[in-house]
Amino acid sequence: MKKIILLIIIINFTSLLSHAQHALASKYDLMPWPKNIQETGQILPITEDLTISINGPSQDRVQFTATSFLRRLSGRTGVFLNSGFPTSAQKNANATIKINYKKEGELSITNDESYQLKVTSSGATITALTDIGAIRGLETLLQLTNYDTTQYYFNGVTIADEPRFVWRGLMIDVARHFHSVDVLKRNLEAMASVKMNVFHWHLIDDQGFRVESKTYPQLTDLASDGLFYTHEQIKDVVAYASRLGIRVIPEFDVPGHATAILTAFPELGSKPGTTYTLERNSGVFDPTLDPTNDETYVFLENLFTEVAPLFPDTYFHIGGDENEGRDWDANKHIQQFKKAHNLKTNHDLQTYFNIKLEKILNKLGKNLVGWDEIMTPTMPTTAVIHSWRGENEGLPKGGTLIEAAKKGYNTILSNGFYIDRMESIKKHYATEPIGDVKLTKEETARILGGEATMWSELATSETLDSRIWPRTAAIAERLWSQQSVNDMDNMLKRLEVVNFRLEELGLTHIKNKAVILRNITNNQNISSLETLTNICEPLKIYERNKDGIEYKTYSPFRLFADACTADASDALVFNRLVKQYTTSPTAATKTEIMAYLNLWSKNYDAFSKLKKSPILNSLEPLSKNLSEAAKLILKGLESTTLSNSDKNLLKTNLSVLKQDHVDVEVVITEAFETLSKHLK
Amino acid sequence: MKKIILLIIIINFTSLLSHAQHALASKYDLMPWPKNIQETGQILPITEDLTISINGPSQDRVQFTATSFLRRLSGRTGVFLNSGFPTSAQKNANATIKINYKKEGELSITNDESYQLKVTSSGATITALTDIGAIRGLETLLQLTNYDTTQYYFNGVTIADEPRFVWRGLMIDVARHFHSVDVLKRNLEAMASVKMNVFHWHLIDDQGFRVESKTYPQLTDLASDGLFYTHEQIKDVVAYASRLGIRVIPEFDVPGHATAILTAFPELGSKPGTTYTLERNSGVFDPTLDPTNDETYVFLENLFTEVAPLFPDTYFHIGGDENEGRDWDANKHIQQFKKAHNLKTNHDLQTYFNIKLEKILNKLGKNLVGWDEIMTPTMPTTAVIHSWRGENEGLPKGGTLIEAAKKGYNTILSNGFYIDRMESIKKHYATEPIGDVKLTKEETARILGGEATMWSELATSETLDSRIWPRTAAIAERLWSQQSVNDMDNMLKRLEVVNFRLEELGLTHIKNKAVILRNITNNQNISSLETLTNICEPLKIYERNKDGIEYKTYSPFRLFADACTADASDALVFNRLVKQYTTSPTAATKTEIMAYLNLWSKNYDAFSKLKKSPILNSLEPLSKNLSEAAKLILKGLESTTLSNSDKNLLKTNLSVLKQDHVDVEVVITEAFETLSKHLK
Repeated sequence: MKKIILLIIIINFTSLLSHAQHALASKYDLMPWPKNIQETGQILPITEDLTISINGPSQDRVQFTATSFLRRLSGRTGVFLNSGFPTSAQKNANATIKINYKKEGELSITNDESYQLKVTSSGATITALTDIGAIRGLETLLQLTNYDTTQYYFNGVTIADEPRFVWRGLMIDVARHFHSVDVLKRNLEAMASVKMNVFHWHLIDDQGFRVESKTYPQLTDLASDGLFYTHEQIKDVVAYASRLGIRVIPEFDVPGHATAILTAFPELGSKPGTTYTLERNSGVFDPTLDPTNDETYVFLENLFTEVAPLFPDTYFHIGGDENEGRDWDANKHIQQFKKAHNLKTNHDLQTYFNIKLEKILNKLGKNLVGWDEIMTPTMPTTAVIHSWRGENEGLPKGGTLIEAAKKGYNTILSNGFYIDRMESIKKHYATEPIGDVKLTKEETARILGGEATMWSELATSETLDSRIWPRTAAIAERLWSQQSVNDMDNMLKRLEVVNFRLEELGLTHIKNKAVILRNITNNQNISSLETLTNICEPLKIYERNKDGIEYKTYSPFRLFADACTADASDALVFNRLVKQYTTSPTAATKTEIMAYLNLWSKNYDAFSKLKKSPILNSLEPLSKNLSEAAKLILKGLESTTLSNSDKNLLKTNLSVLKQDHVDVEVVITEAFETLSKHLK
Repeated sequence: MKKIILLIIIINFTSLLSHAQHALASKYDLMPWPKNIQETGQILPITEDLTISINGPSQDRVQFTATSFLRRLSGRTGVFLNSGFPTSAQKNANATIKINYKKEGELSITNDESYQLKVTSSGATITALTDIGAIRGLETLLQLTNYDTTQYYFNGVTIADEPRFVWRGLMIDVARHFHSVDVLKRNLEAMASVKMNVFHWHLIDDQGFRVESKTYPQLTDLASDGLFYTHEQIKDVVAYASRLGIRVIPEFDVPGHATAILTAFPELGSKPGTTYTLERNSGVFDPTLDPTNDETYVFLENLFTEVAPLFPDTYFHIGGDENEGRDWDANKHIQQFKKAHNLKTNHDLQTYFNIKLEKILNKLGKNLVGWDEIMTPTMPTTAVIHSWRGENEGLPKGGTLIEAAKKGYNTILSNGFYIDRMESIKKHYATEPIGDVKLTKEETARILGGEATMWSELATSETLDSRIWPRTAAIAERLWSQQSVNDMDNMLKRLEVVNFRLEELGLTHIKNKAVILRNITNNQNISSLETLTNICEPLKIYERNKDGIEYKTYSPFRLFADACTADASDALVFNRLVKQYTTSPTAATKTEIMAYLNLWSKNYDAFSKLKKSPILNSLEPLSKNLSEAAKLILKGLESTTLSNSDKNLLKTNLSVLKQDHVDVEVVITEAFETLSKHLK
């Protein structure tokens, strides 16, 4: 009976707490949302006397983040801090922000990243077991920066926080388009700001080999267009990531996606007598390493032995995806080899290859990670399965992630986190790794976390950030925060703030929109185009580059579609308003809707004033039909009715807007149709 | 008599040509303006079939720039080129753009950078002696990109071009604020786009030692805050510059500006028993190397011997400026040393030091360059004098530049090119190195050119580009183009286009304004602040940082003044309009003036709608008085008269606007006063 009462109390308390936390989530723009948070009812003013003290061993990480904290705090408030650097606790017993931790964290899946944060009017304290926990806490504190008309301050709260998953990653593909060290560093900083801890570096693919090899200089001489990382640069990135508490997992994708390797070493290919040239298109290509050739393993062992020390992490990704085996099928020798070794399918042959690779990697002290195709019946469970295929690929609920966990593999999820598909963050945020699938405790523990994947066929360094951010911050929350943190509207509200704050790290996701629009207009007034970008989104799920041949690696990526992003801002609001209005119409909603329609109805006039070029001409139908459609709906809303001829005109406008214009989708078209149906 | 006729013909022809060129300068936005240009009357369409062929030895430089040319061309036109890379002339006999050159250029002051360019409807050819000449020609061709409603094309011209001066440099100070490799690379690209050829790298100063030393790791361990370049990074920057035809001159500033060195090695200082800490303020400081200590020379010889191979250029800058000798005066041992060596003044002692340095550098195959303080009577004329003091420092006409040339030194000019002083480009553009000073041919030849100097006490990497560009492009023209190219209005027109085009190289000079304004408003609507930035300029000539102690290296540089630039755009136009109107008033001019006044009179309403913070509050008086003043003048202009009480109100507004607001100057205040005097 006592137990039951206790249970009831606990349930009530939990539900109360959850309700309280929800209320706080409207108030504070923290992302990822912490596990436990309470208000202290006080504020901590940010003055020029603010100082930070550090109490703990091996202060490199905390010094780095605390110094960056001071710069960012000063930059966003304009407060001229007297002290520009943190000091040791011994030197400053009365610091405003006191950081205490016990030990240096290890960059591994068993590291403790928990922290406690307390902010009162007399100061802030961050307490953690590890330095990495401490820097996670500093990022939370920075997100508590607030102001009124007279001062800046930190909101007073008590937080106890820790991640739900140990693997919270971002993959960046540097093969399809190369991204320099500075581009990676700013993305690492952005990752750290939302507590992500794994950078998965997709280093080679058909379009380029991006790692210096002193053993095989031909790889970059012949297959990189001069765009690759030196060993020193890799060490620099890895060291930078380490300071931010981020592990770096390299990926050397084999045996498929091998055009770059085979451009340098055609003799390792599965198609004898062929020469290869670097791929300029996108897609899945045939060039594949020959798994029956001993030289293939000599090459890979030498290569991996050379690069392994550059990447201290114990995990090493060998790709292993999308090998369709065409060149294997066409090669008699390979077919004979399969028979001789009792390998029935190409999958069996690839497993044969993978197992040999795993041995090489184990010798180097590495665990093998591979995309989920490597999960064949004979693949040892020591491998980590990177799940990229799920229900959307026709697999059962949970996809290969759940399957892998049940079969005994450690596993990470990327299905649902493919940010390069340009889908709404709502979809990614709703991707719950485990959901209501019943798993044992051991199976659950094998689900290490997940990774957002940024394939860069359609992203140069100029647009990369706008494809990754801010959506990845919400994926970071999905992987750090509790499963119960899932209020979509609240997430969107907080994401807007994170989006803006990411800019202080040098990210270009916001500012490069105007750059591209200035380019398109040849430096004319960009406001009419800006209005269009706020309701247009790039075509999704690889529709932009049908068959992978519309865009080559060197095609222009400074076009209108490149200025647009997923979750077009005005469309997000407008579509919500229309939904509200058609379910329960109010005058206020109507006014807001009409303001948007007004904006769009006038936009074509502004657009028409621009001196036209071929690029601008291509936007003409979109701009014109949008304004005409908006005018007609406006007319209809004003009188609540629309003549049949106007309705027909509107239909024509909408049918044009639905067409594929300059690789974007006008994402208010459905709302326009809904409104038009609403008119008499 | 024949001679006279010939002379008359030549004069007439030159003047005709000059007139014709002036007409072309209104038509084409080339910068720097070429030596000779004629129209072919044809255009060359830019289609997807466009190709480039290269005919010449050692194609690394031309390949690099030609590939970048194709990306930029495709990016700015949206044309999907079939061929993404240049090929050799053998492989493609019918290329659209044919590049021919004879030999690899040398990165030296004797290199030939001339080129000829011809554009007709059938193609373009670039002919040069060296690869560096060829890439200069490619930049010119890219500046000829044009369009109409149906196509993109190159304007048809014939150009024969070569530089007036061999040394056209930009100095960047990476000591006061550190700037990463990527920041330097994008500035190198910008330099190459306007044909500059010397990057002067100011690597050490009181605020930081920015070069890895394997001999003396204490230098960066103790005196860099972890912000420095590794040897690999230096090699990377130097190689990148070389590809762009840019020489790299390192500066190790000694014996003054030595706080960083002495933080690591106090025993080399002139103040025995002192310990030093890295300087956080700006200005001229006492810490100075001890020139009487043999260990000083051992240290410098070891250091220079280590770093010299990183910098293949034969010139090596030792600074030598602003040593006020206070620590020497206070040091008895040093005073005795002077007596013993018959060194009467501290200048003599410094020359003693410089001569010893020159010997060390000569052994390393380097020529010494130093700021003009090194030009003492006993300094050998083998040194290069870097002139930074001129008439504005109380020196005779031509300053130390002319003096140095007359005394037999090779010399370069920076007086007049101090872009960090935030003065108008008009002033820099009017800085004619030789002017009408009479010099012998030999003396003239000793004037190698000049350098824009970007000291970065007040510039972080976020604002650096906006301090350097676009003004440096006009300085580049001053140093490349003929002396006769000096039409201010025409330069300003062309500079506007260059300014926009520089953005395609990733420069942040335009886009970071909005970033800072979003920061200041905490992501509110920035348009009212943007309007203010277009008439406000940062305080000039170091007034912003009085005594060097208002701003420390870690102070916030994301303030309103950081969003402002020299040559505020609306002020430039408005001030010109007011001048026109007050000299010869027309209704059209009046309308234009009133449009601006209208904009400003309404701006305070928009500003008032922002949620206020301490930063925004600091802008209140500026915004309010601007709107009130604009309203009053508008009222006056409408009725051509203003009541006495209104005049008094206006006077008050203007006196507030003239005050020092948030470190900016409201640069339309004088025009307002002029207008107000114009009213009855």
